[in-house]
Amino acid sequence: MTTPAIQATNGGSRSLQALSRYAPSLIWLRHYRRADLPGDVMAGLIVAIMLVPQGMAYAILAGLPPQVGLYASILPLIVYGLLGTSRALAVGPVAIVSLLVASAVGPLAGGDAALYLQLALTLALLSGVIQVGMGLLRLGFLVNFLSHPVLSGFTSAAAIVIGFSQVKTLLGIRLPSSDGFFQSVALTFEHVGETQPVTLAIGLFSIALLFYFRGGLGKHLRRLGLPAPLVTIATKSGPLVVAALGTLLVALLDLNERAGVGIVGDVPAGLPPLSLPSFAPDVLTALLPAALTISLVGYMESISVAKALASKRRQKVDADQELIALGAANLAAAFSSGYPVTGGFSRSSVNFSAGANSGLASIITAGLIALTVLLLTPTFYYLPNTVLAAIIIVAVIGLIDLHTLRHVWRYNKADAASLLVTFAAVLTLGVDVGILVGVAASIALYLWRTSRPHMAVVGRVGDSEHFRNVQRHDVQTCPHVVAVRVDESLYFANTAYLESRLLGMVAERPEVRHLLLICGAVNFIDASALETLEAMLQELRDAGADLWLAEVKGPVMDRLLAIGFIDKLGHDHVFLSTHQAMNALVCV
Amino acid sequence: MTTPAIQATNGGSRSLQALSRYAPSLIWLRHYRRADLPGDVMAGLIVAIMLVPQGMAYAILAGLPPQVGLYASILPLIVYGLLGTSRALAVGPVAIVSLLVASAVGPLAGGDAALYLQLALTLALLSGVIQVGMGLLRLGFLVNFLSHPVLSGFTSAAAIVIGFSQVKTLLGIRLPSSDGFFQSVALTFEHVGETQPVTLAIGLFSIALLFYFRGGLGKHLRRLGLPAPLVTIATKSGPLVVAALGTLLVALLDLNERAGVGIVGDVPAGLPPLSLPSFAPDVLTALLPAALTISLVGYMESISVAKALASKRRQKVDADQELIALGAANLAAAFSSGYPVTGGFSRSSVNFSAGANSGLASIITAGLIALTVLLLTPTFYYLPNTVLAAIIIVAVIGLIDLHTLRHVWRYNKADAASLLVTFAAVLTLGVDVGILVGVAASIALYLWRTSRPHMAVVGRVGDSEHFRNVQRHDVQTCPHVVAVRVDESLYFANTAYLESRLLGMVAERPEVRHLLLICGAVNFIDASALETLEAMLQELRDAGADLWLAEVKGPVMDRLLAIGFIDKLGHDHVFLSTHQAMNALVCV
Repeated sequence: MTTPAIQATNGGSRSLQALSRYAPSLIWLRHYRRADLPGDVMAGLIVAIMLVPQGMAYAILAGLPPQVGLYASILPLIVYGLLGTSRALAVGPVAIVSLLVASAVGPLAGGDAALYLQLALTLALLSGVIQVGMGLLRLGFLVNFLSHPVLSGFTSAAAIVIGFSQVKTLLGIRLPSSDGFFQSVALTFEHVGETQPVTLAIGLFSIALLFYFRGGLGKHLRRLGLPAPLVTIATKSGPLVVAALGTLLVALLDLNERAGVGIVGDVPAGLPPLSLPSFAPDVLTALLPAALTISLVGYMESISVAKALASKRRQKVDADQELIALGAANLAAAFSSGYPVTGGFSRSSVNFSAGANSGLASIITAGLIALTVLLLTPTFYYLPNTVLAAIIIVAVIGLIDLHTLRHVWRYNKADAASLLVTFAAVLTLGVDVGILVGVAASIALYLWRTSRPHMAVVGRVGDSEHFRNVQRHDVQTCPHVVAVRVDESLYFANTAYLESRLLGMVAERPEVRHLLLICGAVNFIDASALETLEAMLQELRDAGADLWLAEVKGPVMDRLLAIGFIDKLGHDHVFLSTHQAMNALVCV
Repeated sequence: MTTPAIQATNGGSRSLQALSRYAPSLIWLRHYRRADLPGDVMAGLIVAIMLVPQGMAYAILAGLPPQVGLYASILPLIVYGLLGTSRALAVGPVAIVSLLVASAVGPLAGGDAALYLQLALTLALLSGVIQVGMGLLRLGFLVNFLSHPVLSGFTSAAAIVIGFSQVKTLLGIRLPSSDGFFQSVALTFEHVGETQPVTLAIGLFSIALLFYFRGGLGKHLRRLGLPAPLVTIATKSGPLVVAALGTLLVALLDLNERAGVGIVGDVPAGLPPLSLPSFAPDVLTALLPAALTISLVGYMESISVAKALASKRRQKVDADQELIALGAANLAAAFSSGYPVTGGFSRSSVNFSAGANSGLASIITAGLIALTVLLLTPTFYYLPNTVLAAIIIVAVIGLIDLHTLRHVWRYNKADAASLLVTFAAVLTLGVDVGILVGVAASIALYLWRTSRPHMAVVGRVGDSEHFRNVQRHDVQTCPHVVAVRVDESLYFANTAYLESRLLGMVAERPEVRHLLLICGAVNFIDASALETLEAMLQELRDAGADLWLAEVKGPVMDRLLAIGFIDKLGHDHVFLSTHQAMNALVCV
């Protein structure tokens, strides 16, 4: 269970050990084994093959020029490779973060392309600062408020929004800007008659080919006896192949001029220029909510992938260091003409199964992307937009997660409700507000659940020392004692419910003289609940009954003693076990 | 413990019984005992004596003409008397609700007095609709989210805001409108040089006299041998006496003209005219948040007083019917030229101790106020504003609640924090936002607490079947088993913490082969936690250890079985008790 990273430092100096907490690469660089190199090179190459077309496609999804997606795939990847604790995470532009960028920057930029770019850089800056800050303050646990059902509902809805946003490009139609998902659907249907048939045909053919690369191709190649590494490269090069085919087709047949097929056009050559995000306070304030969402959602996606992959090889990732590494990658993006990045699911899985053994794989990917922007940008001129749309659509279809909905629905309707609320809120209110609504709904459902705690009247099982719910078990009870197990901590939201239920139980049965509260599941009693207990004690005694406690936990008892409640109750009114209490109340 | 109201219906018909659920007066009217009459008359009279000056003062605090406070003390009181279940609650204008009205209506009215009045009526309408609706839907429990510390912090801060708002009137200075509490304090200090000495003298004298009525007067009168009822009337007539003295002084010495003492001026005579609140959707939308706050805060104040007084006489109040009664009183205010009302603390206590036995006391008070507006309004002409300010200041000083702060601080720092946050937020951000911040803070602190659950490694106490925390008790443990009691339900906010703590415990001790999770305090496991458990099971088994459960509660077990987790874990891996589990894991 110890992490190999820590094992490896056993021989190292103490200061190096301390430093390597923040730069795990110091360990793998010193101890790099030649045997790991082929895996790293192979993984770096395959991820680069996927990332070139995906990076451009996601940048366009984010409303940015295509080269920005490539720029965001160079320096950030090197930084993550040096600082990250996951050996397989592939950082870079991803679909959902791109959508979040578009929805945050779009309304503020007002059609000004230079401003748009600067706002995207500023988002990367802010997200980076937030993530590094949270990592240093060890606040990684905050992402836990994004519950699994909320994240699933959010991802599915975002995938639908993203997928649908590409339909117009696939059809080759132009739409006026729309306000919200449903309006954009309506507009698309309204303009569907303007579809450009050649554009649509290229798009649909690309989709079909991409699905073939994902599915049948691997089987066919293996049947032909191709070695496994080549099969992997081949199956993962679907986006590259459709991009190349589409480009050739448009260039050779001059489909841009003759059939109106939209193309990427000029992509500047050369390494990413240094860039400066905005530091204006009003810009930072306006982007802060979106930056928070991007840092949390991005981190959540990244850490879940990293954890899942690490556990397959019995490795561990450090949640706080991952925040620092991702934040640093975002800061790198902010100053090298990129936009917010994170660890994506599909490329990381490919990186892992292609054999990535260390951060070197990331660095190799970055090197290949750098070569691409230096040498290959002229070849992107005729790349049709409809092909990029096809790449995005195929990538996000897999994110629509019906499995979790079915699973959660069977397990627990409250969790299913928070999933569906998030899903509906993202579609109707937008991605940024939607996820907030989801988090609020999951918290509200949790509070609702704890505000009406389960209470069980219990009785003795046979002659044993065990006491169980009278409604679920055949147990012995005693007419003048009602023993109630309260299955929840007592706090402000459930204290009135508790009081009325307990007093009701006593009021219904005039023969009851003792109310025994079994507190084994009461983990704390807050000030509001303490006040209710004091009031209840008075009311019970006024009514000729008495209050007794059993199984009070140590920390809870300490507080009740310190505040003087036990003095009011009577020190002989508290029992270690229900068994002892029931013996004392003469119900043997 | 049964309510006398229900006992009294034993002879009545079924339909009457059903009807009397919503109109408890049907019972006390039919069964009214002559012996109850003197108490009701006496209480009705004393409350009226207090209410005439207080009603006018609170209306002015709310930014309304003084007669509105009297109008709000007629029909609403009759309605509450007929529908309420408390026998002692005195409904009418109160300080905090008046402040909430001023802070909600002020910014919307923009200095237009007629609009101001209509908006206040609309607030009463909305609050009434919300309260009646919540009562009918039995949503009274929602007020529980106003925890005791939040309410205490809110009340103290509101009392300070209210008290300070009267200082300018006490000094006789005029201030430009200010933005927030601290600015109004600054402005007051800036203009303190313009103080009108005669106004201040009358105000300070009134304050001194009011404190004497509250304190020394009762003792002196009892020493003189005055009968108790007369002493009660005398001590509670402080506001009336200072109002009368102030009025006489100003009228006789012409202090309004000669010393610039501000006076109430013309108060129209006659019963309240019928009134119509606004039903315009945009007005309703704008006032909705404030109406929600007023209905919840007003109800909370009202129900706490009603409960406290009822329990002193072994009576009970019905929380949902109280909402309906208060809501109906507010609806009555909305259509009879009033403004939002609620059951106030001080007048209700007076009503109770003066002997109110039924809703008749309220109806008598209303009758006396009606006579006042019919006959006595000309006498209010020379009533000095500084006297009304003095009445308010003395009334709210008692609301500043340091006792709860001290008590809660000793008991629990988290509760103390939510009290102080609410207090600070009300002073800095205003009453309406402040209380929301307080509620949010108390929820956040609760989530924070449950997100880092207490976990105890337990061992066997002697040879018993009991297991206790190894850090608090001298217990036996077994090297290859770690038995952990988790003192919290497992849900999204604590699942990552749980996983890292538990896996950490196993990782630290390589000899551990069994992790036993004692779930006696786990009241539910949500979908996120289920997923974590599944991942943990896999990780533990990968590491050569195994997971076992004990004391799983019935409802939790049902779900784990249904979703197939127990199949993965192994049905023999779940034990009824820790004792059985430890025996099976060979640690006898």
